[in-house]
Amino acid sequence: MSNFPENFNFAGLSCGLKLSGKKDLGAILCKKRALTFAVFTQNSIAAAPVKISKERLKKNKYIRAILVNSGNANAATGIDGYNDAIEISKRFSELIGVSEDEVLLASTGIIGVRLDKEKIISKIPELVNNLKYNNHKDFIESIMTTDRFEKEYFETISSEEGDEIHIRAYAKGCGMICPNLATMLVFITTNINADEKILEEVFINCVNKSFNAISVDSDTSTNDSVFFMTDMLYPKNKIINRKDKLIIDFESALNRCCIKLANDMVRDGEGSTKVLEVKATGFASEEDAKKVASNIAKSTLVKCAFFGSDPNWGRIICAAGNTNLISEDSVSIKIFDTEVYNKKPINFDKTSLSKKISNSERVIIEIHNNVGNKDFTFYGCDLTFDYVKLNSEYST
Amino acid sequence: MSNFPENFNFAGLSCGLKLSGKKDLGAILCKKRALTFAVFTQNSIAAAPVKISKERLKKNKYIRAILVNSGNANAATGIDGYNDAIEISKRFSELIGVSEDEVLLASTGIIGVRLDKEKIISKIPELVNNLKYNNHKDFIESIMTTDRFEKEYFETISSEEGDEIHIRAYAKGCGMICPNLATMLVFITTNINADEKILEEVFINCVNKSFNAISVDSDTSTNDSVFFMTDMLYPKNKIINRKDKLIIDFESALNRCCIKLANDMVRDGEGSTKVLEVKATGFASEEDAKKVASNIAKSTLVKCAFFGSDPNWGRIICAAGNTNLISEDSVSIKIFDTEVYNKKPINFDKTSLSKKISNSERVIIEIHNNVGNKDFTFYGCDLTFDYVKLNSEYST
Repeated sequence: MSNFPENFNFAGLSCGLKLSGKKDLGAILCKKRALTFAVFTQNSIAAAPVKISKERLKKNKYIRAILVNSGNANAATGIDGYNDAIEISKRFSELIGVSEDEVLLASTGIIGVRLDKEKIISKIPELVNNLKYNNHKDFIESIMTTDRFEKEYFETISSEEGDEIHIRAYAKGCGMICPNLATMLVFITTNINADEKILEEVFINCVNKSFNAISVDSDTSTNDSVFFMTDMLYPKNKIINRKDKLIIDFESALNRCCIKLANDMVRDGEGSTKVLEVKATGFASEEDAKKVASNIAKSTLVKCAFFGSDPNWGRIICAAGNTNLISEDSVSIKIFDTEVYNKKPINFDKTSLSKKISNSERVIIEIHNNVGNKDFTFYGCDLTFDYVKLNSEYST
Repeated sequence: MSNFPENFNFAGLSCGLKLSGKKDLGAILCKKRALTFAVFTQNSIAAAPVKISKERLKKNKYIRAILVNSGNANAATGIDGYNDAIEISKRFSELIGVSEDEVLLASTGIIGVRLDKEKIISKIPELVNNLKYNNHKDFIESIMTTDRFEKEYFETISSEEGDEIHIRAYAKGCGMICPNLATMLVFITTNINADEKILEEVFINCVNKSFNAISVDSDTSTNDSVFFMTDMLYPKNKIINRKDKLIIDFESALNRCCIKLANDMVRDGEGSTKVLEVKATGFASEEDAKKVASNIAKSTLVKCAFFGSDPNWGRIICAAGNTNLISEDSVSIKIFDTEVYNKKPINFDKTSLSKKISNSERVIIEIHNNVGNKDFTFYGCDLTFDYVKLNSEYST
């Protein structure tokens, strides 16, 4: 209990949006104003809650609460859907006694269908009543859709003076994205006290190496949102030096947090049996390395090959070649520790490597380009019969 | 018989590259020099035959023959593979009595494995001996890999003076691409006599609306090649006016040819049960329309939805939104003739539309953006259990 940032309360309950009767309405409330950053979907069909949260954060970065629902994404619902969300958030902010601009929103679920706002509004008093430091289990249930397991992360680091900096984070996501079904939602709470610009940079760095470095099926949801809130309790003297040891340690911890949650999402990718960890190394820029790593991780042929435990380097080099950033005379490719290509094909024990892939839940693929010293790691998953099943049988 | 361009001879036989014993070596020979254009894969891992054909076409556009093999792509085989191809082409050019630079090459099959050049070289005399006007059945068999059916096109148009302009084309392709397996190879022969620049423009236009407007799984092969050859027989007076009625008619015919062959490839897409014809209309530029149409046709979620006969417009608008070129307040979406979205969701008979999709081998999806008058049609296919099966069980 003492390992959580102390000012954040959580709640979750069922308001009837999910026909299953499972929890579908959740909230996070900070007892004081929390400095908040967020990144949202780049999709131009952004959901109403995304639009509203964006607008509010533009005006004011000091936030008190986030209201979340699952079961309905409130996306592609036009001005009516926007007004529904405003009305819901108004009622919520009244009941917790904060101004409307201090509340953010998130939704996940079916798109293109009006939200039943009355179901939500009628349950807000009970939700507010339930807000407790320890009600995180209810909260995490309320944000899940097709997730097969809960995704959470806790870590505490200490300053030299003995201050405890806590990170407490919850996430949902799989399928990345299935617009009617799954969305990435991430809520990170902490108590670090640092300069706003420094913190924002740390947050964006960590997001880029994690949530922006994963793919299950190359689509981006209308509702994807990552929130970061800090009540700025410790250290008492705000960190203003970007090279301060504590902020360096915090960045490492936040990075572990984001990589862990992002990997949980990929591992939970619809129907997936294996995580593909693709490291592109030796590139001229991180951007180039990212393009190559993501092209490999997103290739349906590569994804199918690894589902079949096939160490098919031909598909890897071909997917990489589609970026026009590599040439066959410069690259080498490893699957786990086995070099399979080095400027030309290499003889390797295919049967034994295939067996190793078959027995692994995570396959490490490395492509080295010998033209620089920049690296990027991108995370994907295999493409399976169950993915097709889940995504073709849904909805009708 | 008289409906083919008269100077082109074809041959095909088995030289033993395919373990099945099926035909795997083919050739096209023109009795005179043919003006030749080609487009090749953009993948930086281009196969040896692609490199050689590119180099030769840069020096000389008047070509006599193309030698093709299936069963081995001769890709990612380094300088050795390049030298193999040169040696093979040298032997072939000697036997048909033309200079090396008048011969182009194409290959399809497994990548990263040295070609058994002796198998090919020992069969070249027999192949050359078999070159006949009417041996196209042998030729088409020799270029097939996992193709489920033969892909060919014939059309004859007449000039006002009674000249007959023939188009005779053969293609292979499915899976677009499966680097170890399937590649797009297209061979178009004709007898039109027109200015080189005009013909090249006509050819590129047709390729862009067909072979560059299809996707089975968004990958591009190391070996993709489209060849266009004309012996320039008719009309006797070379067409030099871009607006000449005959060249306009020819462009229409060549367009039908390319669209037909491209659609055959998509229809033959690995494991596919339906072609998705995605029309993006009302855009500011053709480029924008293409981005939106291709994003929809390539979305694995859209592909899965249509495999399940699910008229899931949410996935369509979401895939379109990922381009940032549309907004939910401007677009309308039709599936066949049923409007499912028009600036907001529309009530429609989902059961009956789903039934219609289920009964169709081709689904027409139209997204209209109300911001201009430019259109583009992109062709894709559904994503099925069989696709995953074919691509995960292959090779090991």
